[in-house]
Formats: sequence, structure tokens, C-alpha cells
Amino acid sequence: KIITKKSSKQQNQDALRIIPLGGLHEIGKNTCVFEYNDEIVLLDAGLAFPTDEMHGINIVLPDMAYLRENSHKIKGMIVTHGHEDHIGGIAYHLKQFDIPIIYGPRLAMTLLQDKLEEAGVSERTNLKSVVPRETVRIGEYFSVEFIRNTHSIADSFSVAITTPLGVIVHSGDFKVDHTPVDGEYFDLQRLAEYGEQGVLCLLSDSTNAEVPGHTPSERAVYPNLERIFSQAEGRVMVTTFASSVHRVNMILDIAQKLQRKVVVVGRSMLNVIAHARNLGYIKCPDDLFEPLRSLSRLPDEKTLILTTGSQGEPLSAMTRISKGEHRHIRVKEGDTIVFSANPIPGNTIAVVNTIDRLMMQGAKVVYGKQQGIHVSGHGAQEDHKLMLALTKPQFFVPVHGEHRMLVKHSQMAQAMGIPQENTVIIDNGDIIELSTESIQVAGQVESGIELVDRAGIVQDTIMKERQQLAEDGVVTVATAIDWSGKLVASPTLHLRGVVTKV
Amino acid sequence: KIITKKSSKQQNQDALRIIPLGGLHEIGKNTCVFEYNDEIVLLDAGLAFPTDEMHGINIVLPDMAYLRENSHKIKGMIVTHGHEDHIGGIAYHLKQFDIPIIYGPRLAMTLLQDKLEEAGVSERTNLKSVVPRETVRIGEYFSVEFIRNTHSIADSFSVAITTPLGVIVHSGDFKVDHTPVDGEYFDLQRLAEYGEQGVLCLLSDSTNAEVPGHTPSERAVYPNLERIFSQAEGRVMVTTFASSVHRVNMILDIAQKLQRKVVVVGRSMLNVIAHARNLGYIKCPDDLFEPLRSLSRLPDEKTLILTTGSQGEPLSAMTRISKGEHRHIRVKEGDTIVFSANPIPGNTIAVVNTIDRLMMQGAKVVYGKQQGIHVSGHGAQEDHKLMLALTKPQFFVPVHGEHRMLVKHSQMAQAMGIPQENTVIIDNGDIIELSTESIQVAGQVESGIELVDRAGIVQDTIMKERQQLAEDGVVTVATAIDWSGKLVASPTLHLRGVVTKV
Ligand SMILES: [Zn+2]
Ligand SMILES: [Zn+2]
Ligand SMILES: [Zn+2]
Ligand SMILES: [Zn+2]
Repeated sequence: KIITKKSSKQQNQDALRIIPLGGLHEIGKNTCVFEYNDEIVLLDAGLAFPTDEMHGINIVLPDMAYLRENSHKIKGMIVTHGHEDHIGGIAYHLKQFDIPIIYGPRLAMTLLQDKLEEAGVSERTNLKSVVPRETVRIGEYFSVEFIRNTHSIADSFSVAITTPLGVIVHSGDFKVDHTPVDGEYFDLQRLAEYGEQGVLCLLSDSTNAEVPGHTPSERAVYPNLERIFSQAEGRVMVTTFASSVHRVNMILDIAQKLQRKVVVVGRSMLNVIAHARNLGYIKCPDDLFEPLRSLSRLPDEKTLILTTGSQGEPLSAMTRISKGEHRHIRVKEGDTIVFSANPIPGNTIAVVNTIDRLMMQGAKVVYGKQQGIHVSGHGAQEDHKLMLALTKPQFFVPVHGEHRMLVKHSQMAQAMGIPQENTVIIDNGDIIELSTESIQVAGQVESGIELVDRAGIVQDTIMKERQQLAEDGVVTVATAIDWSGKLVASPTLHLRGVVTKV
Repeated sequence: KIITKKSSKQQNQDALRIIPLGGLHEIGKNTCVFEYNDEIVLLDAGLAFPTDEMHGINIVLPDMAYLRENSHKIKGMIVTHGHEDHIGGIAYHLKQFDIPIIYGPRLAMTLLQDKLEEAGVSERTNLKSVVPRETVRIGEYFSVEFIRNTHSIADSFSVAITTPLGVIVHSGDFKVDHTPVDGEYFDLQRLAEYGEQGVLCLLSDSTNAEVPGHTPSERAVYPNLERIFSQAEGRVMVTTFASSVHRVNMILDIAQKLQRKVVVVGRSMLNVIAHARNLGYIKCPDDLFEPLRSLSRLPDEKTLILTTGSQGEPLSAMTRISKGEHRHIRVKEGDTIVFSANPIPGNTIAVVNTIDRLMMQGAKVVYGKQQGIHVSGHGAQEDHKLMLALTKPQFFVPVHGEHRMLVKHSQMAQAMGIPQENTVIIDNGDIIELSTESIQVAGQVESGIELVDRAGIVQDTIMKERQQLAEDGVVTVATAIDWSGKLVASPTLHLRGVVTKV
């Protein structure tokens, strides 16, 4: 089934085009186009969260102009896993064009189904779940094998995309976890087999390319969480990413072991746990859980509250609890509150402020890198090297990272013998043209961003106006003049956000 | 001279009041009031920088209502060192009330003199430089000894304040650096002597109370900087805090050793270097420096550019260089750019974006904790323990830190034998009442913040309006009606920053 480089060369001299619309020079909104002749296959379509300067913005999407214009070519989409930066944009794409079919892991497809229904676009596509080592054909030119990998969310895949020119391996998001919590091992054998037969190009996750060594196994946090929970004398509250299914799984397991009932708080946490239990990624008895309304009846030392808000998000449960604004949960003396997540750089201040507020209300807060209660879901340098060593690609493109991470990742590849001219550092919108002999950036497509607030897409000029209003305020002058231009009353002045000398 | 606890008790049963107006539950705007009967002595008066939500704000000051109302009591001020978070507020204080005399280190007094002149308030006070072990009397009740400590800026002091109730030691900002760059050793002997005679209360810097171990000596970065500079084939650009006098000193020293001429860029960097050279804290020959206009004539391998902007500040030289917006400096292939500073949490994104932009223009950028090119100016846990061990205070108040840092610092003190009831965790505005027998929070004074933008003080309601304008924009409707209330023309609508359905 795998077309070797030689035969592909004889069949077709056309170039394969790879066009990332998002995910480069950033962590977020991963969206990648694979194009051969008149066929496009998409890989993931995520969203990003706004920076502080994006006033009033809820989410950030890539510019979809290229896909709108070429929507007739779209044969289907591959989804690697269910994180927001990989599936959060799909509903918005479907408002603008159809995608005939989307293949992906069961958990991602279930989460996606909810999103599409909520947006009213579930009729615009066809979701198909795949199992490990399943191969699907998309259009005339592409076939895709899903290869199990390990990551912070369950049911995550790397993919091998067989094209007329050769095999492209896309790592998806991964770390190399040899002791996965759910017992689903990284399918290193399939990657090795592709490497043996010849991989034309590898695109690989660069998130932790600046971090030396290996990322520890997700299991490494288990004993630390267990020790902290068992030392707690009152209630335990834990916050982590809702999508970190393995972490949630371990927390539930420890709760059961320590005979604490679990109260789950936060819509996304409830949602992910429900789906993950349905699909068997989380295994625990129904009676482990208690509804929020029973909280006041549970003895403190038998209670564990699992909640969203590990990033200090303004509307999340943990943030509201810390501000005393949560309708059902008040911090009390003796609570142990555990942050089982590291702040993403832009969120550090929000997180530490939340921690401070919780401490001031009498909670013991456990947080920080030294506690061993969080590990990354992304591989570090040695994991990256293993991916390169297994797949032995002819060409290499670092993806999923900011510029310096891509540069570091590319340097690692060169240290492992890939010639510099066989790698490219690209930005969103760059058109990679790949032949069996060469890789090059052959041009650009439109690649800006689209900002979405409550009312819809926000234009760039509007953002500039908002920034100016924020910094200077606004002055309105109401003047009544008659038809001849004479003032008929004294003008009135209104100021909003404007400093007057006091 | 030191009044022992016994004799002070016999003399006066009045309480000493310590009221921090800033610097608690934050890093910034350190401002502390010491009050006994009708006398007030101030210790430092700093500013803080605005958070992202403070649109259009340049600096943040503590609420000065308490000092305005009690300005007749102010007998003088002590300054510990020349950092902005300790002296940056003084000019604003002097616009509201006089301070008869300000005592502080020579470098801080020189920097302060400039600020007061610029603000036109230098007549409102009297600046007096002090030397190590100098004791000054302020008012009837206070005398203050300046005790040399080690910190990231040169000429920094801890102080021992002798009051009718006993001795208060305020650590100032410090680390314990046994190999200081300028050869001015921490005067551990004086602290120990005060400890031996009896310290009633210690107030101590908590910045790195979450960090285990000792903070390395400032000298530790020397060999790493030297190695990086000497490996550079083209120009070297270095950025650090202008106020990190020791760091700047080492950079200049290495430049001289490697026969690179130094071009200094950025107003604050030029200013600090000029003053530090005048006072002898930086020693180097005049011909080490070249003016910016000579830059193009210097050979790349003989050039070192020293610049501000290590925190990605929007208007700083390094940020403008990274954006290609600097009038005189363009990045070129072969440049080595060194970030000799860690980003302060709120600045991380601005810094990494700057690094990415510099790399994209072809520079080799050296940054990050693993490079050994930055150490903190604040002591870690073992440094804090040494301060506690030397001074053996009866009462302890952790200061200069966010809530969790204060809590950690207090826990260290308790582990060293200070009873919990002899420590207090306080917030800005809390009134600490100290007697020879007890410490307690006896009330609060007004302790909000004052926000300053280009036009002056910005009220809270104005900030709320700006936030709303930023998120939603503004709609103005102009309607012309006659005296009877009838429309005389169709209304016109103006939108700014408002999303319309497109
Ligand atoms: Zn991702
Ligand atoms: Zn992911
Ligand atoms: Zn300070
Ligand atoms: Zn300082």
C-alpha cells in the first residue's frame, strides 16, 4: 500500500503542497492543508485564545480565505486528537463551507459532535471514528493511517499520510510515555515500519523543543497527588485542564482509594468526564460521584471537589470560588486546594492572584513545579529525537510552536543528520512545495487571523478603535445649530473614560 | 545608644505603629510609615507598573490620603536603595506634601535628584547621602543606622531603626552575596550585633520566599557572559535592567577584555551608567564607549551594544530594534543578542515575542534560565533564614512580596522558633501596633491605588468606563429636534469599536 519514493516519482511529477493556516509561530489554532492536484485534505482545525490586547474577543481563528476559495477541492479532514487547539475551529469552518467527511479518534469525534450541534452545523459534515492502525482513503490521492500516540488527552494519534509522492508522517501532539495511564501504548512499531520503508517528510510537534531531556510519564504525578490528598484533613479541591483525561482519571482513582466522594464542578469538566466514561477512557463507579447540591451534606474529610479554572480563567469555577462569587462553594479553613497544572505564560498573573485569594480565605494551596503534581503532555528534546530516529524522514518540518521552538527543533534534526536544505522553518500561510527531491517555500496564501466576539467577526480597524478608546476614552459634543449655522443652545459635553484635571 | 527593651518599656508605654501603604501583596510601590506619638518617618516611596487591564495608565502609586492628612507629623524619610519600586513615588508625594529631609545611599540620592528636578519639586525636600554605618537622627524618637547589604543595584542598605520601644530592623531588598562585584561586602557583623543586643522586630524582603536554597552570587554570570561574547563572530547586543549596576559593570568589563567598543542605547541605561561612573560604582575608561552615531563605522567584531528593553517594554530600544523601527540600529545576520534578565511574569509574552522577531531577522539570540546569564537580586529561602538567624527578632513581619510569599516567609520564621503569634501577615494599609510584649493589626488606613496617565490621576470610574469602551466600543446618535420635541432631520449614527453583522 505504501508507495515508495521511486514508484511515486515515475507516476507523478506534480508537487505536494502543505499549507499550515495556523499553529506556526504560536501555540494554538492548528490547521493544516495537504493539497495534491485538485484535492485538499485538512489536518485539524483549532482555535486560539485572545491576547490581552484583543479587547472583548472570545476566540481567534485563522484566516479561512484560502479554504473558502478552494472549498470545492476539500475531500475531507483528519483529526489527531480532541484538544481545542485542534478541533475548536471546525464549527466555524463549517459555517463557511462543507467538509465531506471528518475522520478522527472516538473521544475527539464525540466532543466535536457536541460542538457542531451547538453551532447548528452538524449536517455540514460526516463524523467517522477510527481505531488504532485503521487506514482511511480520502479522495483519489490520499490514504491515512492512524497510529496511536501518547499525549495529555486520551485517544490521540500520529498519522501517516500516503500520497502519490510518498509518505508524510504528522506526529500530532505527543510525548513518549512508556507507562500510559490508560494502558494504550505509543505504537512505536508502526512508526518504525514507516521509517524502514521510507518517510518522505515528517511534521512534528515542537512545543517543548527548548526543554532538555524527556518529559516524565503522566504516571509520575500519581504518588505526589496521593500523598497530598491523604494528608489533607478537610476537603480537597483539585483543578486541572478538563481535557487532561489521564490526570482526571488518576484523581478519581485516588479519591476512590481514599474514600472521598467526588463533586465535579464546571461545564467542560462534567462534559469531558461523561464522554470519557462512556468510551471507557475513565473507569470508575457511578457512586463515586455526588452532585453539587449534596456538597453541604458530605463530611469534609470525605469530599473531593474537581473543578475547572487551573489557568485563572475569569469565568471559571475556581476563579469565582477564589473571589467568593461562586453560588455553591465557599472556601473554608482546612480546605486543601491543589493546582495540578502549570500556568501557560500569559496566564501566570491570573493564576497566582487566584492562589493568593484562596490562601487569604484560609485554604492551604498546593501549587508550583516543585510539587511534582504536573507534567507536560508534550515531549521534550529527547522525545523529539526519538520521533526523528524512528521515522528517518528525508525532509523535516517542525510545527506546533513559536519561532524559537521551531528553530531549536530544526537544529536537533540537523544534529541527527538531516541536511539543512531538507528542513524549512515556516510561518502560517507559507506554501511548502514538496517533491521527491526537494522541499521549498513556494509562496504564501492569506494567513491573518479572524477575531470572534459575542457578535461575530471583528475587523482589524475595530480592534484599533477599541484600543484607542481604552487608552484615551471618548468625548462627545452635542451642538444644536439652526439652518443658518447659528448656535441655538450652548453645546453639551459628555466624557467617558477621559481624565479631567482634578 | 540602643535602647534595650526594658528601659524603653519604662520610658514609654505608647505603641509604635508601622503602616505599609504599598509593597504588600504585590511586588512594587514599597512605601512604609513608622509612627510614634506625633512623629512619622517614611521608609521608601516607590511606584508600581500597571497591569494589562489598566488601559492608558503609566504608573501606579499607593493611596496617599493617610500621609496627606498627617503630613504635619512627617519628620523625614529613609531610602534603602535606588530601584523604582523604592524611590519612583517620591516626586509624586512631594507634589502633595513636604518631607523635611530624605536620607539614603549616594546612588539613590543622585537618581532621585534628577527625578525631583524633572518634576519641579526639588525645593520641597532636602536630600542627604549617607555612608555605611552612618547613623542619623530623625525627629525626637527615631535614629537610623544604615547597614550595607548586597542587591542587584549598587549602594543598597538594610536599616536598623532605634525607637523608644526597641530596635526595628528593615532588611531592605537583599540577597546574601559573599563575592560582590563591587567588593562592598554585606555588613553581617552589624546585623549580628543588633541581634546580640536584641531586635524587637524584623521586616524582611520576601520576593523569593518560594525559592529553595541560596541565590547565586552576581559574579556567577561573569564566565557565562564572557564565553558567549567571546564566541560571537559579529556584533554583540546585550540587554539587562539599567538599574542592575553590577551586571552592567561586568558587561563593560568583559567588553574591555575582548576589545569591543561599547555603544549604550536607551535613556535610563545612559543615565544610570553616568551616575554610577561618577560615584565609582562602575570603573572603566572613557574610551571604552562610542556614541551611537559612530556605530556604522565600528567593525562588527569590535562592537558591543548595551541596551534597555530586557522586559519587552513596548517603547524600549530592544523592542523597537526587534520591530525594525529603531532609527539607528538594524539587526543583521551574524548579530549575537543576549537577554541577561529573566522576564517578570506579566512580561513573558512580550519578551518571547521580541526574541522571536530578533531571530527571524537573522540574529542568534541567547536567552533563558539554562544559560546562566541571569541571577536574581533577591535572596532565596536560605538567605532569608540567615537574616532571621543574625537578627534574632522578637517579632517578625514579612514584607515586599505577594501573599503566598509572605506566608512562606512566615512559615520559615516559625520553623526557626518565632512563635506564630509573634508574626503577622499584613496587607497594604494595615496598622501594625507593636509594643514590647505584642504585635497586632490594630486597624486600617485608606490603602487603594492611584493611577497616573499622561494627564494626571485617573479615577476608578474612568477605568471602568475605559474597560467597557475597550470591550464593546461606543455608539453615538446625533438627533436634531425642535423646541416642541419634533425631529427636524433624520438621526445620524456613529460607531467606534463596535461590531456590526457582516
Ligand atoms: Zn496542540
Ligand atoms: Zn494537544
Ligand atoms: Zn524592591
Ligand atoms: Zn530593589
